[in-house]
Amino acid sequence: MNDARAEATALLDRLTKPKGALGALETLAVRLAGIERRCPPSPWPGAIAVFAADHGAVASGVTPWPQEVTVQMVANIASGGAAISVLARQHDLRLVVVDVGVAAPVDATERVWVHKVRAGSRDLAVGPALTPTEVDAAIVVGSDVAVRLLSAGARCLLTGEMGIGNTTPSAAVIAGLTGASAADCVGRGTGIDDAMLDHKRSIVTAAVARLHSQPSGASAARHVLAEVGGLEICALAGFIGTAAKAGVPVILDGVITLAGACAAEAMWPGAVGACIASHRSVEPGASIALAHLGLEPLVDLGMRLGEGSGAAVAYPLVVSAARLLGEMATFDGAGVTEKPL
Amino acid sequence: MNDARAEATALLDRLTKPKGALGALETLAVRLAGIERRCPPSPWPGAIAVFAADHGAVASGVTPWPQEVTVQMVANIASGGAAISVLARQHDLRLVVVDVGVAAPVDATERVWVHKVRAGSRDLAVGPALTPTEVDAAIVVGSDVAVRLLSAGARCLLTGEMGIGNTTPSAAVIAGLTGASAADCVGRGTGIDDAMLDHKRSIVTAAVARLHSQPSGASAARHVLAEVGGLEICALAGFIGTAAKAGVPVILDGVITLAGACAAEAMWPGAVGACIASHRSVEPGASIALAHLGLEPLVDLGMRLGEGSGAAVAYPLVVSAARLLGEMATFDGAGVTEKPL
Repeated sequence: MNDARAEATALLDRLTKPKGALGALETLAVRLAGIERRCPPSPWPGAIAVFAADHGAVASGVTPWPQEVTVQMVANIASGGAAISVLARQHDLRLVVVDVGVAAPVDATERVWVHKVRAGSRDLAVGPALTPTEVDAAIVVGSDVAVRLLSAGARCLLTGEMGIGNTTPSAAVIAGLTGASAADCVGRGTGIDDAMLDHKRSIVTAAVARLHSQPSGASAARHVLAEVGGLEICALAGFIGTAAKAGVPVILDGVITLAGACAAEAMWPGAVGACIASHRSVEPGASIALAHLGLEPLVDLGMRLGEGSGAAVAYPLVVSAARLLGEMATFDGAGVTEKPL
Repeated sequence: MNDARAEATALLDRLTKPKGALGALETLAVRLAGIERRCPPSPWPGAIAVFAADHGAVASGVTPWPQEVTVQMVANIASGGAAISVLARQHDLRLVVVDVGVAAPVDATERVWVHKVRAGSRDLAVGPALTPTEVDAAIVVGSDVAVRLLSAGARCLLTGEMGIGNTTPSAAVIAGLTGASAADCVGRGTGIDDAMLDHKRSIVTAAVARLHSQPSGASAARHVLAEVGGLEICALAGFIGTAAKAGVPVILDGVITLAGACAAEAMWPGAVGACIASHRSVEPGASIALAHLGLEPLVDLGMRLGEGSGAAVAYPLVVSAARLLGEMATFDGAGVTEKPL
């Protein structure tokens, strides 16, 4: 236990409340102190990066949504109309959208950062989705975005994504990195019907079957990302790894960002120590990834929207945990009688 | 379904997200529209009333905390050092503490409203805790506080309480109004040991056994409140009932405020329609009351602090639900292609 964790643990028991009465918020406060290596921690201001990319797998019929929706939603997020736009406004989160692989052209603005590695991944149903070079380039994009947000003052990073079809590579990456059955990792994404779900399962199962056996470690993670991943998943891995190295908490969203977190942990063991799980997405791969990472989410609201919406919904709880630790009075300080032992 | 509910339901499906993807936040948005009878709803600004009272049952040894902690915590809440003080600051909630029955003298200030009905209830282990007149007076205090906060502009009310020993009458009230076994309703409160828990169970069981059989309706609720209740529980019932009549959402906290909500629903059937359950307290009586009221809480964080802390933690989620409904773009408006049917 580092000093800040020990200090937070001891401080919690001197605050004017019964011991342990804040439940998961106390556990979270101690974790935040450990990540930031200071007590009390102060995970604000927060910034959310929404990594956007397209996926060749849509050509194989894994979603009813047309690919053009990715670039349309990039515009919608940037102009303030998407769910994540609303939540970022509510919680004073800086919001940037990062084009790491959108198929259509995207114009760069102050809020839209264009670092397109490739105009969408290849179809993982027919071969490797990305080259090793593309994987590394996308990881670097994610890492650079984290560095830029941290340099501008962010003290908590939130993960988001947008990409039609991206629950398919996410399920495949989670299966590849956790060893779970590919079929068990596949869900309905935006809400596909039974026939499309069966089809999606068979595609993910076949793609995962191409992976080299016993994947573990950094080179294995890069192999999984190249064979069955996506550009935003690679970028998310780099983003999460860099936040962890910087000692800044990073709030994970749903199944896509959890796939990125599994890759980050494989490449930089211990990165999960900086990760806060926000919500339990209804996507089955999300629960498999959470169990693999040893994370318990803060809320379970039946959400499956992506964009970082779950991370943003949980952000005020993260702030609460830190502020309660930092701002509550102690029994001594407030002149409140403590329970006799 | 009133018009605002129908309008909210229809609007949700035109917003730029897959249908139902916001999960429980969509259900909540529709409920809020129904309560406020307008779409979109706007449950802000919020105000929290912390009803404070003492309990004669502490003389029977149901808690290790001394009674003086109630008045000390009233001061701590008002001066900004309690958990609810921190959370109210974080979420821009107006916070008032209402002395409806603190044993010690309390000075009135802008934030501390003194409407003491009696200096604590009588010991429910030896006889009725309150007279019918005291019950009615405390209900009126709660109702008046709601009216005053609403008149000052509050559009969402949050329930809070402070009172050493108050999980004991809360368990008894919940047992009396739901028909659940008294022993099942009793929990460890601030964290009592096994011996004290057994003793607390026997006291609550004996007190509930004095209640007239088949309690239901307003007069039965008043009978339960008088025999085994507490002044803050009565005030909470009046507060909740008045919020409901005003068409303003009221966010419930843990087991004490849930006891108040059970009484409100018995006295003013339908009041529960305006209630939002915030969190699942670890107190067993809380889950029994939630099931009785047909409410599903937003979060489950293992909290058992009271003061309104769970309600305040859930408040940003309530705001999110309303703002997402009110501020997200529609498919048409944002030029986003909708999924083909």
